[in-house]
Amino acid sequence: MGDNTIGTFFKVTSFGESHGNVIGVIIDGTPAGLDFDIKVVQQELNKRKPGQSRFSTPRSEEDKVELASGVFDNKTTGAPICMWIKNEDVDSSKYEKMRKFLRPSQVDYTALKKFGGFEDYRGSGRFSGRITASLVMAGAIAKEILKKYNISVFAYTKSIGTVMDETNFSLNDLSEALELRESSPIRSINVSLIPNMEEEIDNASRDNDSIGGTIKCIVKNFPVGIGGPIFNGLESNISKIVFSVPAVKAIEFGSGFKAAEMRGSVHNDPWIIDNGKIKTSKNDAGGIIGGISTGMPIEFKVAIKPTPSIGIPQKTIDLDTMKETEFQIKGKHDPCIVPRAVVVIEAVTAIVLLDQLMFEDFIPRVLNTQQNI
Amino acid sequence: MGDNTIGTFFKVTSFGESHGNVIGVIIDGTPAGLDFDIKVVQQELNKRKPGQSRFSTPRSEEDKVELASGVFDNKTTGAPICMWIKNEDVDSSKYEKMRKFLRPSQVDYTALKKFGGFEDYRGSGRFSGRITASLVMAGAIAKEILKKYNISVFAYTKSIGTVMDETNFSLNDLSEALELRESSPIRSINVSLIPNMEEEIDNASRDNDSIGGTIKCIVKNFPVGIGGPIFNGLESNISKIVFSVPAVKAIEFGSGFKAAEMRGSVHNDPWIIDNGKIKTSKNDAGGIIGGISTGMPIEFKVAIKPTPSIGIPQKTIDLDTMKETEFQIKGKHDPCIVPRAVVVIEAVTAIVLLDQLMFEDFIPRVLNTQQNI
Amino acid sequence: MGDNTIGTFFKVTSFGESHGNVIGVIIDGTPAGLDFDIKVVQQELNKRKPGQSRFSTPRSEEDKVELASGVFDNKTTGAPICMWIKNEDVDSSKYEKMRKFLRPSQVDYTALKKFGGFEDYRGSGRFSGRITASLVMAGAIAKEILKKYNISVFAYTKSIGTVMDETNFSLNDLSEALELRESSPIRSINVSLIPNMEEEIDNASRDNDSIGGTIKCIVKNFPVGIGGPIFNGLESNISKIVFSVPAVKAIEFGSGFKAAEMRGSVHNDPWIIDNGKIKTSKNDAGGIIGGISTGMPIEFKVAIKPTPSIGIPQKTIDLDTMKETEFQIKGKHDPCIVPRAVVVIEAVTAIVLLDQLMFEDFIPRVLNTQQNI
Amino acid sequence: MGDNTIGTFFKVTSFGESHGNVIGVIIDGTPAGLDFDIKVVQQELNKRKPGQSRFSTPRSEEDKVELASGVFDNKTTGAPICMWIKNEDVDSSKYEKMRKFLRPSQVDYTALKKFGGFEDYRGSGRFSGRITASLVMAGAIAKEILKKYNISVFAYTKSIGTVMDETNFSLNDLSEALELRESSPIRSINVSLIPNMEEEIDNASRDNDSIGGTIKCIVKNFPVGIGGPIFNGLESNISKIVFSVPAVKAIEFGSGFKAAEMRGSVHNDPWIIDNGKIKTSKNDAGGIIGGISTGMPIEFKVAIKPTPSIGIPQKTIDLDTMKETEFQIKGKHDPCIVPRAVVVIEAVTAIVLLDQLMFEDFIPRVLNTQQNI
Repeated sequence: MGDNTIGTFFKVTSFGESHGNVIGVIIDGTPAGLDFDIKVVQQELNKRKPGQSRFSTPRSEEDKVELASGVFDNKTTGAPICMWIKNEDVDSSKYEKMRKFLRPSQVDYTALKKFGGFEDYRGSGRFSGRITASLVMAGAIAKEILKKYNISVFAYTKSIGTVMDETNFSLNDLSEALELRESSPIRSINVSLIPNMEEEIDNASRDNDSIGGTIKCIVKNFPVGIGGPIFNGLESNISKIVFSVPAVKAIEFGSGFKAAEMRGSVHNDPWIIDNGKIKTSKNDAGGIIGGISTGMPIEFKVAIKPTPSIGIPQKTIDLDTMKETEFQIKGKHDPCIVPRAVVVIEAVTAIVLLDQLMFEDFIPRVLNTQQNI
Repeated sequence: MGDNTIGTFFKVTSFGESHGNVIGVIIDGTPAGLDFDIKVVQQELNKRKPGQSRFSTPRSEEDKVELASGVFDNKTTGAPICMWIKNEDVDSSKYEKMRKFLRPSQVDYTALKKFGGFEDYRGSGRFSGRITASLVMAGAIAKEILKKYNISVFAYTKSIGTVMDETNFSLNDLSEALELRESSPIRSINVSLIPNMEEEIDNASRDNDSIGGTIKCIVKNFPVGIGGPIFNGLESNISKIVFSVPAVKAIEFGSGFKAAEMRGSVHNDPWIIDNGKIKTSKNDAGGIIGGISTGMPIEFKVAIKPTPSIGIPQKTIDLDTMKETEFQIKGKHDPCIVPRAVVVIEAVTAIVLLDQLMFEDFIPRVLNTQQNI
Repeated sequence: MGDNTIGTFFKVTSFGESHGNVIGVIIDGTPAGLDFDIKVVQQELNKRKPGQSRFSTPRSEEDKVELASGVFDNKTTGAPICMWIKNEDVDSSKYEKMRKFLRPSQVDYTALKKFGGFEDYRGSGRFSGRITASLVMAGAIAKEILKKYNISVFAYTKSIGTVMDETNFSLNDLSEALELRESSPIRSINVSLIPNMEEEIDNASRDNDSIGGTIKCIVKNFPVGIGGPIFNGLESNISKIVFSVPAVKAIEFGSGFKAAEMRGSVHNDPWIIDNGKIKTSKNDAGGIIGGISTGMPIEFKVAIKPTPSIGIPQKTIDLDTMKETEFQIKGKHDPCIVPRAVVVIEAVTAIVLLDQLMFEDFIPRVLNTQQNI
Repeated sequence: MGDNTIGTFFKVTSFGESHGNVIGVIIDGTPAGLDFDIKVVQQELNKRKPGQSRFSTPRSEEDKVELASGVFDNKTTGAPICMWIKNEDVDSSKYEKMRKFLRPSQVDYTALKKFGGFEDYRGSGRFSGRITASLVMAGAIAKEILKKYNISVFAYTKSIGTVMDETNFSLNDLSEALELRESSPIRSINVSLIPNMEEEIDNASRDNDSIGGTIKCIVKNFPVGIGGPIFNGLESNISKIVFSVPAVKAIEFGSGFKAAEMRGSVHNDPWIIDNGKIKTSKNDAGGIIGGISTGMPIEFKVAIKPTPSIGIPQKTIDLDTMKETEFQIKGKHDPCIVPRAVVVIEAVTAIVLLDQLMFEDFIPRVLNTQQNI
């Protein structure tokens, strides 16, 4: 019922299903005059693409982006940009057979109750993780625009299962960090932990099981004074879009749940002057106070639950008999979705922050000008 | 810039400032025909009112609700309901003196950058915790409507500082739980932990310091099939409004961050048949899968940071000299805001869930009918 | 169901009922730093106030505006501004007696069907023309802001009944035109036609009848390039809010319905250069092409139906017996609402155009700056 | 900037450009379970298609609709429906040459000022009448759903130039009227006037000129009680979307501008009882009172300006020299757009009324049910 659009200025509409023709997106509100290179979008999609390593689903998709509108002479026009990728490696037969079983912690039951049985259930349809490709396409454009303002969004794997990366990275050289991250399919930037993280996934995989993890996201050079009190705070808007990513079950900003155990004298971030600029000496606030950016990096962490599709036999209900039973899921699945979700978290963060910056006049509706008059 | 409204159907607009004339709210979209008793609103406000115990600010406010519109013959008419409380115990002189100091982890700097210095800074103006009274008023009505559908929203203090209530309450008798909770200013329902929690606050208070905590919220009898994929998921909408409450820094649904350490075989909630109805045998999902309610209780936990206003001298900047300095905050403050925030979390949860239920036709625009025709 | 708010940036929420406590408004999104003088609001309200002449209802209301929030040190803060006027000359007894009769061309039946009989019917409740006072209050602020950008919104009585003012005013001196308009209760600027217009109303009044008319609205110095294709065009947005004013039944931009009879060679407005600036030599477009402003004056005309409340006996239905019958309306009514609607049309036009200008970054969120940093 | 979406429930997003790859639409919010036959969409598109007669542009487009998402097993799923037609007969060379001339009463100048010169100007890009194909596709679905509730939207050519059809059709047999209308490329239902209307266009065409006209739209069996006071009235919402159609310059409901000349005793529609149901004996209100439907047919008329693209030399500006000059437009144009706009007016009316009906719970989110549980 009109649920597939987000944003006021940089308005993103997702469409398509996992086993339908396409996964697509419309981005309405891109400023005019942005140099548009479809390769940039493809590059981001490639980071999310299935089949990159033994840690992801073997579904074989090229995920080649096609552009339908909104660009002219290699520049955005200000009109809606429509893009999509095709679904090609689709075998829906398993889903038909499984249809009568409610897969645990999957949307079979809730979708059935919401859409009355008419939902496209193949590959989880609109609820598939594959839908995040639409977010990645929109995020690619959002990131390009933010980049023009020197704003970077960077996420990485913070933990896999119980292997937690406790390092507080300063991320002074983001392009180096990016290179490092992309060099491993784990999307960690802590080289020493990668083997343990890999092992965590391999173990789960070997047991036909899956494993969860966390992702840290940091936004650098975000301007001070953006956001607002009450319903338009940055935490509100970021969390709304972050929970749009399937499998996210928690989010914390700055010191997050640890703040709940702290005293004010410990948690408060003292204001200092650093090189003539107002800053805080630490950042337990995660770059946001009163819903408004402080100028410090925006930092948050999200929890990703283990992929619910596992090969182990599970208890459930047979809808035909309405009796409890046991069944086993077949099909292509990620033993751990965390590494592929890293670029998705970046994408949604870029989308929502760009929207907020446009809302607050920080970014104009025409990026360059070639007006004759 | 138009930030003070939330909701599509049950639309809530907050107005007023901490030291202005009033704190008020407009609720637009209340179904017509609801029995309206202003005492119900007052009752909820009383739970949030300052000065209830030694744990809250000594600011003396009666917080008496006044009704301006939307009710006729003791029933809602379907027109906007406007209500407010007056601000009476207002002494702004301290704020004027402090104005040149940026209070750590408070909105002085961010509000200044957003509103250019024109913001009403007295008592933190629009950013004050006192603004949540507007949410409580709207929440009171939302709860009344939900109650007609047997849906209950219940929150309680889960932890104060490091004193954590690990009990998993079944909450079979909610009215009993409510009575228990209201019997102590801590708003805990674990009697054995109350002394430790009180001590945690008393210790902080004695040190002129403050302390954080967590709040657990449970929604019972919420119908299955409400919410949606991607941008309209329940977690998205709940988190958006929950982060509207000042001091909230984290939220987790169901097993939350713990899910990130789990395997799928452990995290997945098996479907069972219980008394002929489909349920899950446990609820690590927190009652939400794919953004849609499962029919199990919706469960989430939020982290409340320690009150930033503390009496201990703090490092900061003097805006007049643009030099680092030390200063001490005077004024009336809560050593721990958690107990007073409990009813606020309930209120925002009721608001957003009612809006979602109305969005999905679960609740009609006219509750009763006295049509002649 | 959440119908009483309009706008994205300059967001206006109307509340109150004709015979309730107040008629009020919240304006959310006013830029911070605007000099705020409540007298300016009062002045606009006075133009709409009942009892100004023999042409309007004798209901005696002072319509004194009270300010509740959003202003500090005589400047807007950027927080929601809440204002209201009280309802004082209220006698609802006639409405109770009339309740069982459906007044022709009034909302009795449609409101009953929508709100199930719970609507506040006294004085037509939320449907009363008195509700437009909330629009006038918001419009007063919108006009003040537009004035800072040299943009003027001016409306006047174009016709009363069949007395049509065919003059095409150039309105070079708007303050003179304003003075002229306010000098007569008819709100015409064509002195020679005022007696005929007065006679038209007097005749209707004498017959216990009412009469309609038209209002012309002109916006000067509106910048070029504001609006958009398809759903966000200026005509779309203006018409949406103009039809919010009770009794409006038609709107035409530029040559309007006459354009339908024209050939392109006649209707097309040639582009010319005038003092180095691009203009059109005439303005059949009414200042809008493709939904976007041309820089020429925005011009439109609206039709106001005759007040449905007339003293003549009318045919209708008695809801108690469900039989056709005849009845006579008592109460205080305007024989012609056109003159009092003039300032309302100005108000809604100012509201929607300001919102659009803010949407397009033309007007910033902070008007002046007194930032220390 | 995010302007290309309309609706809350039945949410329509238009994309594509006249000379780009496609003209497309996303419809988000279609109830699940609707039988979906792409032929129905094609049928509606065919009514708008260019090249149907000598009265329309000779641009040769098949306008064959392609479906990308939202349908499964020939039924809607509740997920976004994406459809498009391709642009095939595209020759942009003329537009490049004309680029330096501002075409009178066209969007060249206003689009340039809004989009800074980056707009896709070929064939008027996003401002082309061809964009209405996206509305027709969405409207086709809206009509299908309304039809299930026995609600019909019917429009026809009311006038071409000065040839006005004054008949007040009762339209008792709508399928007959439809057949009649489609039998002539004029889209009139008054057979006796068709020759004069044709002549009006032929004359304009012969002179390389164009001509305007009016369209009447009637909605039958729309339920009583839908709409609302102030900002959500039916006239507000209908007019907003109707002005989204390029070339519309005026709208009037019921007796419209004529109401402005009437007395209340003449304009008021008496309530009567007809076959046990409450009705009015005439319908000067156009089926809407106080923004809410009365149960009588909704009736409105719109003015369509003459096509601005004419072959006659016109005065304008040469942007290169910034001097006034004369030029002549080449390319494919409609001498009269009215007949092709008829189905577009129907489409937008169906879209907005369906959205309103869904907003008011009249139409559920699942149309049929095949739930197992």
